[in-house]
Amino acid sequence: MRERVSVIGLGLIGGSLVRGLAAAGHHALGFDTNPTTRATARTAAAKAPENARWQVTASIPDAAANADIVVVAVPLPAVSGVFDALAASGFSGLVTDVTSVKGAIVDLAAKHLHTVGQALAGFVPGHPMAGRESSGFPASDAALFKGCAWVLCLEEQTSVGDWVRLAALLSEGLGVRVVPSTAAEHDRAVAAISHVPHLLAAALAGHAANDPLALTLGAGSFRDGTRVAASRPALTAAMCGGNAAATKATLDAVIADLQAARAALDGSDPIAALEPWLAPGATARLAWPPTAGEPEKFTVDAAALRELGRSGGWITGVATDRRTVTAVRPVS
Amino acid sequence: MRERVSVIGLGLIGGSLVRGLAAAGHHALGFDTNPTTRATARTAAAKAPENARWQVTASIPDAAANADIVVVAVPLPAVSGVFDALAASGFSGLVTDVTSVKGAIVDLAAKHLHTVGQALAGFVPGHPMAGRESSGFPASDAALFKGCAWVLCLEEQTSVGDWVRLAALLSEGLGVRVVPSTAAEHDRAVAAISHVPHLLAAALAGHAANDPLALTLGAGSFRDGTRVAASRPALTAAMCGGNAAATKATLDAVIADLQAARAALDGSDPIAALEPWLAPGATARLAWPPTAGEPEKFTVDAAALRELGRSGGWITGVATDRRTVTAVRPVS
Repeated sequence: MRERVSVIGLGLIGGSLVRGLAAAGHHALGFDTNPTTRATARTAAAKAPENARWQVTASIPDAAANADIVVVAVPLPAVSGVFDALAASGFSGLVTDVTSVKGAIVDLAAKHLHTVGQALAGFVPGHPMAGRESSGFPASDAALFKGCAWVLCLEEQTSVGDWVRLAALLSEGLGVRVVPSTAAEHDRAVAAISHVPHLLAAALAGHAANDPLALTLGAGSFRDGTRVAASRPALTAAMCGGNAAATKATLDAVIADLQAARAALDGSDPIAALEPWLAPGATARLAWPPTAGEPEKFTVDAAALRELGRSGGWITGVATDRRTVTAVRPVS
Repeated sequence: MRERVSVIGLGLIGGSLVRGLAAAGHHALGFDTNPTTRATARTAAAKAPENARWQVTASIPDAAANADIVVVAVPLPAVSGVFDALAASGFSGLVTDVTSVKGAIVDLAAKHLHTVGQALAGFVPGHPMAGRESSGFPASDAALFKGCAWVLCLEEQTSVGDWVRLAALLSEGLGVRVVPSTAAEHDRAVAAISHVPHLLAAALAGHAANDPLALTLGAGSFRDGTRVAASRPALTAAMCGGNAAATKATLDAVIADLQAARAALDGSDPIAALEPWLAPGATARLAWPPTAGEPEKFTVDAAALRELGRSGGWITGVATDRRTVTAVRPVS
C-alpha cells in the first residue's frame, strides 16, 4: 500500500529513510531545519530515478499537511520541539521516531505531542539498530536498513493497528526485521548491547592512555574493545544519560560480575577459578548473532507480539489485510 | 648475520617463526612434540623455495645441539618441561620465548633453565603481539609478524649483548618493531590492552545472554565489545590467571572508573555529568594507534632502551657492530 510519509530531519537516518521509502514506491517528503541540508536533499532527489523521487518541504506544517505518517528523525534534544510543531499543525495521523532511548520519548510524546482539545496523533516509538561512522544527508543510503533490526514499541496505550501499519511500511519497503517491544524492555536491552559497552570502551581506553607502552602493544583485543570509545563524548553522554536508569542497572550487574572475576583471580588457583566464570560469555558470544528459525504466521495480537520480541523474534512481513504477520524466532 | 635458530613448538607462532627465519636466510630448525605436526612441517619445508627451507629435528636435544638461539614457542604450562630439556642437553646458547606473560616466565627460567654446575644459557623473555583466530602449523605464515610489536624484556640480569642479538634477528629478519621492556612493565601493559579487555568482553556477553531481545538488537558496539569473549575459556583463564597480580590491579582501576561513571549517571543531570568522564577515553582512542616519529640512532644502553619502551618507542634496526640501534618514538 502506497503511503504518504514525511521524514522530519534529514541526517544519516532520516536521509536514508526518505531515499528508501521513495525507492519502495511510497510518496516520500522530507524536511530539515538546515537550509543547506534541504538544498542538498532537493538536488539528490532530482538525480534519483523518476519513480524514486522525494520532495523537500519548507516547514514542518507543510510536511505534516501532506502526510499520513510522520517520522521524527532528529536528535533527542530536538524531539520535543518537533512534537510541539506537529501538535500545533493539527496533525492527527501516525507519528514514529528513530531515537535510541524510548522511555524518555514516551514521556515527551505525552507532554508535547498530544495537545489537549484536538484530534490526537497516534504515536509508535521506534529505533532502527543501524548506524555508520559517517553522518549527515550526504552519507545516507536507501539500503542502509536492509536486514537491520528495527524496534517498534507496543505500549499498553499504542494502537495495534498503527503498529501493524508501520511494521508493514518498514518490513516491506525497507527490508527491515521489525522487533516488537516495550519502551522499558527496549531501554534495558540497549543498555546491555550499546550503552554499557560504550562505557566499558571508554574506561579501557582511558586507563591505557596512562601507559604509552600499553598503547604501543595494543592489538586486536584493544582495538575492538575500545572502538566505540572514539565516539563523540557529547553523543555517548546523551545516549547513556538519556537512558540513565537502565544503564545504571546494567552497569551495576556488570560491575558485580567483574568483582566476581576479581575474586577468582585472588584465590590460590586463579586459572582454575576463572575458567567457569568465563564460560557463559563464551557460550553466548559463539551463539551470536542468533540463527533465524523457520518463518511462522500468526494473528496480530499485542500480547503475542510483545512475547515474540521478548523471546528474540521479529516480523518479516505483514499480510495485506493486516490481520496476520510473518514472524521469525531465533533457533535456541 | 646468519644465525642458527631452533624453534621448539610449531603452532601458529612457532610455525610462522620457522618459516619467517628460513625465508630471511637463517639456518632454521623446528621441533614439535606432536609427530603429525613434525611431519606436516617437514612436508611444508620440502615445498619451500630451496633457499628458504627449514629442517625438523626428532628431539629437543637434537634441536639444541645445532643451534645458537632457541625460541621456546610452546604454551605456558609446557614451558618448564622444555626449559628442563634444554638445561639437561647442556645448551649454553641464547634462549627466548613467546608466551604472553613475562613475570611467571622469569621465575620459571630461574628454576628450570639455569641448572647449577654448568654453563648457563642466556635468557631474554619475549612476546610477539601477533595472533589469529586460527591456530596450529597449517595456519602459520612467514609474514605473520611483519610490523607487529614484539616485546623483548631487558631485566637487570639480562645480557644487553644477548638482547641486541635477538633484536637484530627479529627486526631485520621478520620486520618486527622490537619493544624493550621489563617483565613487570610488560605484564601491566598487557593487562590493560588484552587481559582486562577479555574479562570485560566476557562480562558483557554473559550479561546479554540473559536477554534474547538484547541479542537480537546487538549490532556494532556489541559485536566489537564482545568479540574476544568467543575465545576458549581455558586459554583466556590461563592468560589472565597467569598474570593475576597485574590483571587484578588493572581490573580494580577499571572498576573504580566505572563506579565514577555510575555516580555521574546517578546525579540530576547525568548527560552533563557523563560527558567529561567520557572525554579522556575518546581522546586516547582517537590518538591510537600511535603515529611513528622520525627514526633516531642511539648507542645501546640498558637504561636508555628501557626508557624508550616505557615511552612507547621501539627498535626498527640494529647496526652491524651491534653498538647502535635505530629507534622510533610515537609522536605525542
